[in-house]
Amino acid sequence: MKMLDCSALSALVLMLPFAVLRAADAAKDGRPAGKVVLVLHGGAGDLPGQKVPPEVDKQYRDVMEKALRAGHAALRREKGTGLDAVEAAIRVLEDSPLFNAGKGAVFTHDGRNELDASIMDGATLACGAVTGVRTVRHPIALARAVMERTPHILLAGQGAEDFATEVGLERVDNEWFSTEKRRQQLQRALEAREKASGGGTVGAVVLDRQGHLAAATSTGGMTAKRPGRVGDTPLIGAGNYADDRTCAVSGTGTGEEFIRHGTARAIADRMEFSGLSAGEAARDVFEHVMAPGDGGAIVVSSGGELALVFTSEGMFRGAADADGRFEVAIWDD
Amino acid sequence: MKMLDCSALSALVLMLPFAVLRAADAAKDGRPAGKVVLVLHGGAGDLPGQKVPPEVDKQYRDVMEKALRAGHAALRREKGTGLDAVEAAIRVLEDSPLFNAGKGAVFTHDGRNELDASIMDGATLACGAVTGVRTVRHPIALARAVMERTPHILLAGQGAEDFATEVGLERVDNEWFSTEKRRQQLQRALEAREKASGGGTVGAVVLDRQGHLAAATSTGGMTAKRPGRVGDTPLIGAGNYADDRTCAVSGTGTGEEFIRHGTARAIADRMEFSGLSAGEAARDVFEHVMAPGDGGAIVVSSGGELALVFTSEGMFRGAADADGRFEVAIWDD
Repeated sequence: MKMLDCSALSALVLMLPFAVLRAADAAKDGRPAGKVVLVLHGGAGDLPGQKVPPEVDKQYRDVMEKALRAGHAALRREKGTGLDAVEAAIRVLEDSPLFNAGKGAVFTHDGRNELDASIMDGATLACGAVTGVRTVRHPIALARAVMERTPHILLAGQGAEDFATEVGLERVDNEWFSTEKRRQQLQRALEAREKASGGGTVGAVVLDRQGHLAAATSTGGMTAKRPGRVGDTPLIGAGNYADDRTCAVSGTGTGEEFIRHGTARAIADRMEFSGLSAGEAARDVFEHVMAPGDGGAIVVSSGGELALVFTSEGMFRGAADADGRFEVAIWDD
Repeated sequence: MKMLDCSALSALVLMLPFAVLRAADAAKDGRPAGKVVLVLHGGAGDLPGQKVPPEVDKQYRDVMEKALRAGHAALRREKGTGLDAVEAAIRVLEDSPLFNAGKGAVFTHDGRNELDASIMDGATLACGAVTGVRTVRHPIALARAVMERTPHILLAGQGAEDFATEVGLERVDNEWFSTEKRRQQLQRALEAREKASGGGTVGAVVLDRQGHLAAATSTGGMTAKRPGRVGDTPLIGAGNYADDRTCAVSGTGTGEEFIRHGTARAIADRMEFSGLSAGEAARDVFEHVMAPGDGGAIVVSSGGELALVFTSEGMFRGAADADGRFEVAIWDD
C-alpha cells in the first residue's frame, strides 16, 4: 500500500505555475478560513502501465490539470462553493475518454454504458446520487439536481433519466459514452482473459474558503458488470462521503468491498470516534479493513490535511491549495 | 422516543405458548452457543391508530406471529442458519397485505409498486440487495440470490428483474402487490392531504445457534416516491446491517435520513468504537443523530442483547428466543 501525504505528493509531481487562490475572506461562522484544498483522482486500478509512451502519459496529465483548473476556478469565484468546485472538476473528467466516467466509461455485460455518480455537502450532509444513467452527459450534474431539487437521495435507471428530462440536463445517445478501448476491455473480460476491473473512477474532494467540505465521485462501474449493478460510487458512505466534522472522501476500486465495509464512512468514523488524523484513518482502513488490491481513496480533513491511499501501481491525482500548489501526478516514484 | 429492552418488551406483549428452541448444539468455533434471538418489526410509521377495532389489531398480531413462527422453525432445523430465519420471516410479511413490503406495498407517484430489499450475513459480511423490483413475489429471496450467486451486492430495476428470471424466482404481475388501502394513501399523498410516509417496512434480525448474526429488511419505500427512488432498505449500513463483531440492525422510517446518517452502521459503530451496548448505541443514534419522527430500528447484539427503538406511537414487533419467549406487540402501553 502506498500512502502519500501532502509533502510526499509534492515530491512526485509536476509542479505547475498557477495563480494562488485568494483565501482572504474570513468565514462568517468562526471556522478557520483561508485554507483551501482541492484534490482529484482518476482511479487507481486502470493504469496503462508505467511504460506508456510519453504522449499518452501527457494526455492523462493534461486532462487532470484541466479538471483541477476548472475546480480551482470555481473556488475562486466570489460565491464559489466546494460543491461548485467538485462538480466542475468532475464534469471535465466525465467528458474525457481517458477515465471510466461519462465518455470512456466501461461497458456492461450486454455492451452498454450505465453511469453512477454522487455528491455530498459536508456542511449540511445534503447528498444526491444516481445509478444506471444511460443518456445524461454529466451524471454528476444529475446527482446534484437530485440533491437540490428532490426530497430523495438516490434515483435509479429510468426514474433518473426522466428526472434529467424534467430538469433539462444535456442528453446524449448511449453510444456517445463508448470508446474502442472499453469495447476491447469488455471483449477480454467476456473471454475471461482479463479480470473485470472498476478502475478509472473519478473523484474530487475539497475544503473550501468557508471551511466546508464536499465530495463528488463518478464512474461507469466495472467492466462486464450485470446491467442494473449498483456499485459503491452512488452509495453515501461507501464510495463517497463528506462531513464537516471529519473529512471528505472519494474512493475508487472494487465497489462491492467498498459497500460491504462502508469504506468512506469507515475513514470518517476513525476520525470521529478514535481521534485519528485523515492519514492515520485512511491507512488503518486500507491496511486492516480492505484487502490488498481493493483500491484507494483521496481524503481531505476539515483541518485541511490531505491523504491519498492506493494499493495499485499508481493513481491519477491532482491537488491544488491556497498556498499555490497546483500539481498532478500518476506514479509514486 | 421509546426504548425497549427485552424485559420491557415482555411486559407489553401477548405471551404465546410455543416450543422452546433447542440450543444444545455447541458452536464449533468457541462462540457462546445456545443463545438464540429472533426479532421482527413491521414498521413504525404506519400504525392505524390505537383505536383500531380488535379484529384489525388481531390481524396484525396474527401475521407477525406467523412470521415469527416461520423464522423460528427455520432456526430449529438442523442446518438452519440465521439467514434462513430472517428470509423465512420476511417472506411471510411480504405476502401479507398489511405491511409495506411485497403485497400491500405503497405506490410510486405514477401508481406502481417498486420494491426494495436487502439481506446481510454478519459472519462473513456477505450481503445482497435489490431495488426497483416490480414482478418478484419475494424481493428478499432475490436479495439473497444476488448475495449468493453474483459477484455484486445491489441490482436495480430491469437488471434485477432479469436476474430473477435467471434464478427462477416466483413472479407475479405488478398489480399483484396493490391494495385498495395503498391506492387511497397515494391519492391522499398526491392531494397533499397526507404526508408521504415510509412506514410499514418489515425487518428481521437474528442471533443464531452458531452465534452468528443476520439481518433482512424489505419495503415498498415511501408513498408517492419518484419511480426509481432508492431508499435506505437496500443500502448496506443505512437501513440494514449485520456484523458478528457488533450487532444486526433493521431500520424503518424516513429512508433519506437513514442514508444520510448511515443509521444502521452508526449503531454498530458506537458498539465497535465506544464500547456501548446495543441499547445504548441505538438510543444514542436516535436521540442525537436522527430527528424525532425519523423512525426506529430493531437491534440484536452478538451477545444476544435486544433493543427496539421507535419514535412513533408504536411499532409492530415480535421476538422469540431460546428461553421460550415467543411474543408479539404493537403498542408500548
